[in-house]
Amino acid sequence: MKYNTFFQTLAFDRVLPYEGQVECLVYEEGKPFLQIKAPEADKVNFRYEEVDHYCTKDESGIWKTPYTAVSAMNYVQLIVDGVELITPMLPISYGYSRPYNYVELETNDDFYKIKDVPHGSVRREFFESSVTGEWESCVVYTPPGYDETYKTYPVLYLQHGHGENEMGWTAAGKVNFIMDNLIAEGRTVPFVIVMNNGMVQKVDEKGRRVVDFLLFDKYLMEDVIPFIEKKFRVGGKKVYRGMAGLSMGSLQTCLTGFAHPEMFDCLGVFSGFVTDIIQGSELDLPGREASANEHLKLLDDGKKFNALFNVFFRSMGDKDPFWSNFAHDDELLKEKGITQVRKVYDGTHDWNVWRESFRDFAKLIFKNV
Amino acid sequence: MKYNTFFQTLAFDRVLPYEGQVECLVYEEGKPFLQIKAPEADKVNFRYEEVDHYCTKDESGIWKTPYTAVSAMNYVQLIVDGVELITPMLPISYGYSRPYNYVELETNDDFYKIKDVPHGSVRREFFESSVTGEWESCVVYTPPGYDETYKTYPVLYLQHGHGENEMGWTAAGKVNFIMDNLIAEGRTVPFVIVMNNGMVQKVDEKGRRVVDFLLFDKYLMEDVIPFIEKKFRVGGKKVYRGMAGLSMGSLQTCLTGFAHPEMFDCLGVFSGFVTDIIQGSELDLPGREASANEHLKLLDDGKKFNALFNVFFRSMGDKDPFWSNFAHDDELLKEKGITQVRKVYDGTHDWNVWRESFRDFAKLIFKNV
Repeated sequence: MKYNTFFQTLAFDRVLPYEGQVECLVYEEGKPFLQIKAPEADKVNFRYEEVDHYCTKDESGIWKTPYTAVSAMNYVQLIVDGVELITPMLPISYGYSRPYNYVELETNDDFYKIKDVPHGSVRREFFESSVTGEWESCVVYTPPGYDETYKTYPVLYLQHGHGENEMGWTAAGKVNFIMDNLIAEGRTVPFVIVMNNGMVQKVDEKGRRVVDFLLFDKYLMEDVIPFIEKKFRVGGKKVYRGMAGLSMGSLQTCLTGFAHPEMFDCLGVFSGFVTDIIQGSELDLPGREASANEHLKLLDDGKKFNALFNVFFRSMGDKDPFWSNFAHDDELLKEKGITQVRKVYDGTHDWNVWRESFRDFAKLIFKNV
Repeated sequence: MKYNTFFQTLAFDRVLPYEGQVECLVYEEGKPFLQIKAPEADKVNFRYEEVDHYCTKDESGIWKTPYTAVSAMNYVQLIVDGVELITPMLPISYGYSRPYNYVELETNDDFYKIKDVPHGSVRREFFESSVTGEWESCVVYTPPGYDETYKTYPVLYLQHGHGENEMGWTAAGKVNFIMDNLIAEGRTVPFVIVMNNGMVQKVDEKGRRVVDFLLFDKYLMEDVIPFIEKKFRVGGKKVYRGMAGLSMGSLQTCLTGFAHPEMFDCLGVFSGFVTDIIQGSELDLPGREASANEHLKLLDDGKKFNALFNVFFRSMGDKDPFWSNFAHDDELLKEKGITQVRKVYDGTHDWNVWRESFRDFAKLIFKNV
């Protein structure tokens, strides 16, 4: 069965160029370029890997630049005459706290691509939150067979990074296809995945909507888990429950996982942080002090910690700008005698590393169910 | 429970303005305006209702224009220096054959809003297509209670219009919330809804991907229905199955429904067409001749037709540019003695009429199950 790799949340079939516009990602002599037709614009650039790449215009009004990122998937910001906008000719996920384009290159890696195997479902669910006082929504992956059987499945609560939301792991991470492929190859226990918005919004004392990532612990424990484990045939006890996350989500995993070790059998810390470096930083609400890292006290009795979690998994890209934080946590965990699975991947702080991290974590967890 | 009405497919929680940008839809003295910060741009306009509305720039570089559409939901195209792009500060659905912004105004109507009632699920499913030879994907709404019961539900196959895709009815139509609300009020039989991409893509003899709306009949009958009615507890016989669509999807409903009357108990023709006005038109593949309208032969025996379908529903906005086509079909159906439910709404060819059409159709169908 053929499949195209250009699908996105808003369009599984390819978006074909519309009148007056051209394909955005094109290959010339095997090399990728980004382009857009904009005859009246004065300046066009694409920003990725935190660098602005300026285009040159040809006589037909097409602005073009070589695309130099080598890894499969990267966020890309189109900027036309200084305005950061989205092009419908590239797929759209959610990053930098808003809908955001990304580029998916053709590569030889295919563990995250849709293949000729049975496919699970990706569901959007709606629930009341006592923490925010609003209706909220999460994304749930159920593996192939979930609808046709009556068994109870293990469940992984899986979180995105700063500026992303509940769509990230499916829209950008393709986590559903990674799971479908692992299950078809018999390399993982089938489990359900629940993905929430960890950038929890609240209304501050001045009436403004703001994001408070520290609300997520209460939100998960009091709103999400009761809702999910009532509606789905999942979880119900520690050995049937895990938590993982990338970057900010990895810290949320440690904050919640260490605070509620009776709840989770396995923890996955992808490109991320055991020690809290976010609270009080520029990524947090203004005016909050740095964390006292109370959650790290659970590490003090290493033997006890090792007995609490069947899998404690940490990963990092070898070119990740947060490498020194990873190394710092390495020292801490060594000092405390913590048993872990530790993986280092070729890459930086991006979805390519997170796809690999998830794949390897998924192979290890829920072996006892 | 509070709820915000700004949710969209890619973000249920509100997208907050990011550094350097402002809210796009703002109210001043109760009146809506569209705006974008673009200090370096030479020209900014928003196109909606097929008209370009040009903005004026203030000293801070914000371009603004009054938003004059009066109905709740309209597609909006942002154009910066002549380039048609998407702003992350408005919600995004899929129209005009690509991801596309829309504006959702605050209104007193609330039948399509998320309310304090039980909510169904919105699922993305993946299936093989023998017609396209590719993996394809559809969206499925399951009503509240589907996961907790073992009963079999009726199923409605529901189609979008030209240039839209499988996301339209949930992303723009909010059909899941319309259903949740109707079910909570006891005004409809709970049923499952299956939404497919009716702009079926194939590869033509020159190797180009093109859209062929006439493939949908075979695609639905041979690929979609067998997949859905195996995976879900739905359908299985005529009285448990219906079909409806808007605009192009309404024609597809008549083409397929009239060709397979043994399959469907009810048909919904929203803002649309009994007579085929699309085949051979500029909306069809180039070079195809106008339809011979073979499907209309089923109307020749009006009594038989009336016995075949429990509900035959047609609707139109009173300001719809296709009104003359609706009137032409009116004459045809009258001449043939066809029994129908016929609704005319205040509005044009847009989602406001389609939301109302769906609501009223949903109240009438599957009463015998």
